[in-house]
Amino acid sequence: MSNGVISPAEEKASGQPAQPSLQPLLDLVAADMDRLNRLILSYAEAHVELIPKLAHHLIDAGGKRLRPMITLAAASLCNYSGEDHVKVACAVEFLHTATLLHDDVVDESDIRRGRKAARLLWGNQATVLVGDYLLAQCFRMMVETRNLDALDIMSSAAADIAEGEVFQLTLQNDVSTSEDDYMQMIEWKTATLFAAAAELGAVLAGRNADERAALRRFGRDLGIAFQLVDDALDYGGQQAVMGKKVGDDFREGKITLPVVLAHARGNDEERAFWQRVIQQGEQREGDLEHAIALMQRHDALADTIARARQYGDAANEALQAFPDGKARAALRQAVDFCIARAY
Amino acid sequence: MSNGVISPAEEKASGQPAQPSLQPLLDLVAADMDRLNRLILSYAEAHVELIPKLAHHLIDAGGKRLRPMITLAAASLCNYSGEDHVKVACAVEFLHTATLLHDDVVDESDIRRGRKAARLLWGNQATVLVGDYLLAQCFRMMVETRNLDALDIMSSAAADIAEGEVFQLTLQNDVSTSEDDYMQMIEWKTATLFAAAAELGAVLAGRNADERAALRRFGRDLGIAFQLVDDALDYGGQQAVMGKKVGDDFREGKITLPVVLAHARGNDEERAFWQRVIQQGEQREGDLEHAIALMQRHDALADTIARARQYGDAANEALQAFPDGKARAALRQAVDFCIARAY
Repeated sequence: MSNGVISPAEEKASGQPAQPSLQPLLDLVAADMDRLNRLILSYAEAHVELIPKLAHHLIDAGGKRLRPMITLAAASLCNYSGEDHVKVACAVEFLHTATLLHDDVVDESDIRRGRKAARLLWGNQATVLVGDYLLAQCFRMMVETRNLDALDIMSSAAADIAEGEVFQLTLQNDVSTSEDDYMQMIEWKTATLFAAAAELGAVLAGRNADERAALRRFGRDLGIAFQLVDDALDYGGQQAVMGKKVGDDFREGKITLPVVLAHARGNDEERAFWQRVIQQGEQREGDLEHAIALMQRHDALADTIARARQYGDAANEALQAFPDGKARAALRQAVDFCIARAY
Repeated sequence: MSNGVISPAEEKASGQPAQPSLQPLLDLVAADMDRLNRLILSYAEAHVELIPKLAHHLIDAGGKRLRPMITLAAASLCNYSGEDHVKVACAVEFLHTATLLHDDVVDESDIRRGRKAARLLWGNQATVLVGDYLLAQCFRMMVETRNLDALDIMSSAAADIAEGEVFQLTLQNDVSTSEDDYMQMIEWKTATLFAAAAELGAVLAGRNADERAALRRFGRDLGIAFQLVDDALDYGGQQAVMGKKVGDDFREGKITLPVVLAHARGNDEERAFWQRVIQQGEQREGDLEHAIALMQRHDALADTIARARQYGDAANEALQAFPDGKARAALRQAVDFCIARAY
């Protein structure tokens, strides 16, 4: 499927349409991505060596670059013909990277993108400060585009993300977190940047308020779907296949929708279990497996994925405001790909 | 001197002109400061309670608000008649507050020193994220002014500050730090925000490049003088009067100009002392007093203060680009006040 066309062989093999793929999106933005990667390197530069060194530790690990790809694809969808979309996409990625660096301090996580967390190699202080540098560079790039609407979106996104992260902190380990609070938290923490990434494409292209809102809606709903799928995957997804890297959220006592649902639907004994493992953080051999069994008993994983699918459908629906074509098809398939990860 | 006029009584009492005071500056910006304080409270608000709670902990402690006062006074010096100077001053203060919060982040190594990890972790988390929120709010305010030149100055300042902080980290505990490296570090870390604070007043008033540069120079030189005086005061200033709160930098093994000078001018035995107390952090009873004695032997404190005075003179010289009047006099006296603290 490297050319983005569904191969008949693959279709035949499974007896149904081939799995959705990110490939059409990758193909759509391929030329821009080269420029994006060069720009990322150039704006991570600094006089003080430690800054690019630490930044590269995360940047070189790659990641999907999903958020900047959305900006590039949204610009393509809106027939943007200027040059600023690559810079804005780079700014989106820097805001995301800064958030990850500050998350490493916050979450005490040891592994990020398969590498040792920057925090463990260079310390909390350096990690925070390099995050600050990337955040500042994000805004410098935005200022260089001289687009105040775009700057408005980016600065509001930065505030929402920080607020979502603080909200997550206040909900930490609280198994009685409501569904509403949880959904609000991920909207700020995760969906806002997807929403901004998509809307920025329309803003650069000078599109009207309706089209801006449609792309913002697309990004927001995709972002929520993306987070919910991530939540479910941490417990093995729909099939709860152990063996993949599963249980990070569980071990950290992180509140995610599967936990919220399983706790809310559990009996007294089950609630006592959730309180022990998540609230008090007392975990023993076999607890993760028991947690997954409880989630399956109460359809907590299936319902999380079903909700992700609803948001995915809404994201695709929002794209209907734009004419059919390569860009729209690539974005649709990216949504389907994100959902399909859960199965 | 509450009205900013030198009282003959005070002059007579000491037989020489009264001490320079911040009062003329406070009087100049008094009306704006009320609005500034209201704006600070309003932009520290958030849906998530923890944000204003934590922000207020630092904001309510007050501080001198010297940086935003410089923006307000610079706007006054440039006869700015609009409304945005208060918002920009608030943004300056938020960038400063965010920097302070991120400065407070405790490193992993400290967490292991027998302190209650959970409490420290909670502190780290809140500290980083509320700092991020205030930084984002800083840029939101700047975007609201829709002034791209002002946004350029602020985003560049944020990058320089972060770079200066990382530079400071790489110089940490290194007693062989050169004077040049040290001066570069404080220019980024401290002087940049003073420079931006002053230049922003001229930018809002639409002043030309020369006047912008003059105010930028004023702020930068004042900022460097301010930092050098702080460095000297931490060892008791010119008179090395013990009893004031002295020795914080020393205990942290912080590299400041008095240490750099005393180390560079010391003999082998003295250098061994500096290496032990600063580089290896092995401090014993009486070490602070010995450090101060070595600084006095080599004029390290006097020369630090002399250099501060040179920068203070240069700051005042830069103000000559503007006509005499209340604003210029207030800014001059603020410079003199900063220097006079050292005596």
